[in-house]
Amino acid sequence: MSEVTAKGKAAKKASYQLIGLSTEKKNEALGKIAKQLIIDKDFLIKENQKDLEDGRKKGLSESILDRIMLNGNRIDDMAAAIELLIDLNDPIGEQLETIEKENGLLIKKQRVPIGVIGMIYEARPNVTIDAATLSLKTGNAVILRGSSSAKHSNMALVSSIHKALENTEIPVEAVQLIEDTSRETAKELFHLNEYLDVLIPRGGKNLIETVIKESTVPVLETGAGNCHIFIDQTADITMVEKIVLNGKTQRPSVCNAIEGLLIHEKWFEENGVRILELLDEKGIELYGDEAVCSSFPRAKTATEEDWSTEYLALKLSVKTVKGVSDAIDHINRYGSKHSEAILTGVEQNASAFLNKVDAAAVYHNASTRFTDGFEFGYGAEIGISTQKLHARGPMGLPALTSSKYFIYGQGQIRE
Amino acid sequence: MSEVTAKGKAAKKASYQLIGLSTEKKNEALGKIAKQLIIDKDFLIKENQKDLEDGRKKGLSESILDRIMLNGNRIDDMAAAIELLIDLNDPIGEQLETIEKENGLLIKKQRVPIGVIGMIYEARPNVTIDAATLSLKTGNAVILRGSSSAKHSNMALVSSIHKALENTEIPVEAVQLIEDTSRETAKELFHLNEYLDVLIPRGGKNLIETVIKESTVPVLETGAGNCHIFIDQTADITMVEKIVLNGKTQRPSVCNAIEGLLIHEKWFEENGVRILELLDEKGIELYGDEAVCSSFPRAKTATEEDWSTEYLALKLSVKTVKGVSDAIDHINRYGSKHSEAILTGVEQNASAFLNKVDAAAVYHNASTRFTDGFEFGYGAEIGISTQKLHARGPMGLPALTSSKYFIYGQGQIRE
Repeated sequence: MSEVTAKGKAAKKASYQLIGLSTEKKNEALGKIAKQLIIDKDFLIKENQKDLEDGRKKGLSESILDRIMLNGNRIDDMAAAIELLIDLNDPIGEQLETIEKENGLLIKKQRVPIGVIGMIYEARPNVTIDAATLSLKTGNAVILRGSSSAKHSNMALVSSIHKALENTEIPVEAVQLIEDTSRETAKELFHLNEYLDVLIPRGGKNLIETVIKESTVPVLETGAGNCHIFIDQTADITMVEKIVLNGKTQRPSVCNAIEGLLIHEKWFEENGVRILELLDEKGIELYGDEAVCSSFPRAKTATEEDWSTEYLALKLSVKTVKGVSDAIDHINRYGSKHSEAILTGVEQNASAFLNKVDAAAVYHNASTRFTDGFEFGYGAEIGISTQKLHARGPMGLPALTSSKYFIYGQGQIRE
Repeated sequence: MSEVTAKGKAAKKASYQLIGLSTEKKNEALGKIAKQLIIDKDFLIKENQKDLEDGRKKGLSESILDRIMLNGNRIDDMAAAIELLIDLNDPIGEQLETIEKENGLLIKKQRVPIGVIGMIYEARPNVTIDAATLSLKTGNAVILRGSSSAKHSNMALVSSIHKALENTEIPVEAVQLIEDTSRETAKELFHLNEYLDVLIPRGGKNLIETVIKESTVPVLETGAGNCHIFIDQTADITMVEKIVLNGKTQRPSVCNAIEGLLIHEKWFEENGVRILELLDEKGIELYGDEAVCSSFPRAKTATEEDWSTEYLALKLSVKTVKGVSDAIDHINRYGSKHSEAILTGVEQNASAFLNKVDAAAVYHNASTRFTDGFEFGYGAEIGISTQKLHARGPMGLPALTSSKYFIYGQGQIRE
């Protein structure tokens, strides 16, 4: 039996042991994990150093090394995040529906754990703790498949989790790490339908696309954000400057930052150069259509690829459009169904845009940067779903649950 | 461009035109479809005859021919079902959540259509009308891929739908039938991620398994039901007889009928032969374990395959177990996560069974035959989901919807 199959089987078994575990018992285990991380701090940092050394030898960029890096503060932050998670409402057991039939049958629809969650992710070792603790809070077992670049860190973190779980009612098999980080183990997970109930990829576009294309296990698609702001004819210039800068520069590396700017041609005639100059001053590389490039020669010509690229950097594609309908068409063609904004004073245009743009979150006169589980007040975030089924947009704890019908009778049969 | 790609592209375009359509307009279109079916009755029956003749030549069984057959009554029933659908609440636009942020941002989570639904199904032409009208009611476009055995009927039904839609605001591309019923077009649909938001298989186990294994489009898994009744030590014999007979014989060909009987060994010692004799008298073939076969020689020995078979016929596997924990293990190993029942007088055993059995619907002292959208009062049923994500159990109209965050601001940016 391969490592993946063996751990899958053990996870399924553990998932049955998690059913019916009280919120208190789950929170107690989470508290022990938080404490263990602090106790093991030196060990975790030492193991993390091995990954950093390997990474440096492999020539990984400083930004990737920074993502892998663990230090005292970051470990404190992980433990603090667990304490916040403990305080969140436990969604398991929530009554979603109650149906009383004339024949006396009582039907209750309740939230239950999903079962076994598979998590495939890149670099950041904090995803190991995040995924493990969110899964346990919702009564799920989890199989973690991190990247080779954080292998020692992930193994150390999971060993801390196991130490913490030893004196709880949660079996250690509820959290398991696939130690073989070869491409083969990822492929095995894609087809582990017998033991996995869902697979969640966390990372770059390539990882997510591979999982969607290859996995026969149901996938929760997260993350990729080719987001736009559309500046309508009547948009207020002060608001435009503020929101466009916020969308592009406040944190360019995240999925809810904007990658494309669509400008009504009339607004562009009046204010186009002013906004382009402002963006240029902030060090943003501009990729424009003909109208943009001819009024602002420092902009480069946008290629077809630019329209669909999530730069995650100080780069921005800029296109002039004839109006809201043009803007909607462009976004529905090139966008990644994440977050899209219209800046306008005309209610009718806002309404058309909000309704017709196909995205998880649509904004009228606000920055796309708000699409976030914490900003929405969910207290935790598994990721941002850009798919239509199960969950869409920022996913809080309920996204890690399923439902089940409990039916109580006194001998009823169907006539 | 292939038929599938061309229709996929047209469906996506049509789905955008369906957004924001009022309930009135949608119901008006549904009303016209119901009327058109009645107007076209003779034509529909004539076209259906072609399928029946082809089927007879191919040697299809009488039960399959009966599933394909359309007559005046069945067409009236289709029209009547549409009238009932018109009366159901439109889930689109429902407010699911409202969040007001301190900075004045207003976040509303609303139900929206999914987009484009792909439906792959077998024999029954009524699925064509069902899928088309349920999709339209929820503002979705649909691509129908029926089987070759109902080809003429399906084409005729879709032509009636198109005639009805001509004078409405719904484009005819909102309902399209794939006319090429070769294996290739099914395969194309499995990978039409660009245009399809979900794929729903309706039919036998093989069809459903193929779709799950091959499709990269998200799937709503429906239908297969290897359901059990567990008779606990304290079960009342009168209740047992009534519920077991109902589960097995009231309609053996449906997914919520039982296929396996698990009997506590103590109960079996006392009442085993009596219940087996009763089942035998009703013409049910029994496949038993050692204890069953030795007390009741007319039972055949159950093979490993019997435990996982959905007979959909007057056959039943019977196994003795040591207690509730044994029963749970057997069901979680062999069941199809559909409907499972315990008959017991002991609350604690009922509670363990209901919580630990992994199924969409779990019953205490009632027949599994109640798992049904109409029985639950949903007024419509897309199918019965046996998966954990998005929808589980009988799926009413909300299962054909997604959600979207609408965010209203006055210039807010993230600090």
